[in-house]
Amino acid sequence: MRFAICVEYDGAAFHGWQSQPHGQTVQDHLQRALGAIACAPVAAHAAGRTDAGVHALAQVVHFDVEVDRPLQAWVRGVNAHLPAAIAVRWAQPVAQDFHARFSAQGRSYCYLLHNHPVRPALQHGRAGWYHRPLDAQAMDEGAACLLGEHDFSSFRAAECQARSPVKTLHRAQVRRHGEYLLFDFSASGFLHHMVRNIVGALLWVGYAKESPAWIGELLALRDRTRAAPTFMPDGLYFTGVDYGPGWSLPNEGRIIAPLPFFHA
Amino acid sequence: MRFAICVEYDGAAFHGWQSQPHGQTVQDHLQRALGAIACAPVAAHAAGRTDAGVHALAQVVHFDVEVDRPLQAWVRGVNAHLPAAIAVRWAQPVAQDFHARFSAQGRSYCYLLHNHPVRPALQHGRAGWYHRPLDAQAMDEGAACLLGEHDFSSFRAAECQARSPVKTLHRAQVRRHGEYLLFDFSASGFLHHMVRNIVGALLWVGYAKESPAWIGELLALRDRTRAAPTFMPDGLYFTGVDYGPGWSLPNEGRIIAPLPFFHA
Repeated sequence: MRFAICVEYDGAAFHGWQSQPHGQTVQDHLQRALGAIACAPVAAHAAGRTDAGVHALAQVVHFDVEVDRPLQAWVRGVNAHLPAAIAVRWAQPVAQDFHARFSAQGRSYCYLLHNHPVRPALQHGRAGWYHRPLDAQAMDEGAACLLGEHDFSSFRAAECQARSPVKTLHRAQVRRHGEYLLFDFSASGFLHHMVRNIVGALLWVGYAKESPAWIGELLALRDRTRAAPTFMPDGLYFTGVDYGPGWSLPNEGRIIAPLPFFHA
Repeated sequence: MRFAICVEYDGAAFHGWQSQPHGQTVQDHLQRALGAIACAPVAAHAAGRTDAGVHALAQVVHFDVEVDRPLQAWVRGVNAHLPAAIAVRWAQPVAQDFHARFSAQGRSYCYLLHNHPVRPALQHGRAGWYHRPLDAQAMDEGAACLLGEHDFSSFRAAECQARSPVKTLHRAQVRRHGEYLLFDFSASGFLHHMVRNIVGALLWVGYAKESPAWIGELLALRDRTRAAPTFMPDGLYFTGVDYGPGWSLPNEGRIIAPLPFFHA
């Protein structure tokens, strides 16, 4: 029987999603916890393989088991076997041809950036940080150049394994909320490091090293070497997966709120 | 020369404020960092000694040094010597008779509670958790019974060293924001465990074990044994200190935002 579950985790505590021999990844912890409930080894397949330090508000995972358990066993039972920084939010039986990764029609990411002369302490590991003042409106204009279907090679990591660099970006916004900037992206799919590379490029626009229109020029170049460095993973959140109405999954697009902490 | 600094920290990473022989408290880390800049031992005095697991958005600390350093040395210089979970936000010279603790006229705390069947993962250590549905409005009514000058013995820890159990509560609010409840308290001062004991009692009101008016009855009893257990420290934030206008300190009342993460 196949199940889909929605998983939230603090990426700062683990070495990314993908299983590794040391066993300290989100997939490793989740497979051990699922296995404890199933009394058998369980393979967990995620919608998106997040890098080390990247968080998830609503990662979707599927797995197959032979045993019959009450549905809550795959939520509360599994949570009892998981570290505090990982939690299953819901579980649902799905058809055998559902695949967390290949059935996804769209994915969303947010990036939270602390823009303040002093580095964050409470949001350490939960937000990126840039000390110089940033012009959020110029960055938002730059981000708008990326909307639509494009070859995103300028924002693609060298080690990216995607078959094609062409993706469709449905949402690309930058908003200021006090000391924080919130970046919001939704697309048919994302290349490896794509969001962090876009954030890095938008920073150059934010402190006027480049104009907003430069983002469009950079996109057209399809050349990663002309872009800005990959920005730190700390503020990146995988916020949701869209499977369309066919699978009847809870459409829990979870969005990160703009204001983790702010001045009165 | 005496300085006041404002310090933010993630209490989950330390054994409270107060110095201990193992050296893993906020005061220990701060004194070592200040000492590195001063090239001499420095004693740091805080407005409020937070317990293990309790966070601070705007703890105020004073210290005396002989050396002459640019003001930014007490912010960026000290931050370079602090762990990632502690940061100085500002520094300011103050008169020799200023005392971070004894000059304070009021203090503020917030408590962030995750009210959801599933425990938090990303907010682990940053929010308390209660799994049953809570009636925030009833809790807010209960909290209002505490406003004004009262003997708060019913909410006082046995080990509390305050000279008097009489405090004046200026603000006591409970608001729901999606999956979260935010408690907001401001008072002339707080007894040991007072906020966590009040939150524990308000939980009983929240799931209708007691009525809102019971909070007033409990207050009048001045008997800690009749109240609810002390609630977990995870969601408690020391949010600000009021010194009045005389000291010309930045009045940075930092408030915790209602929505660390919410569902769209």
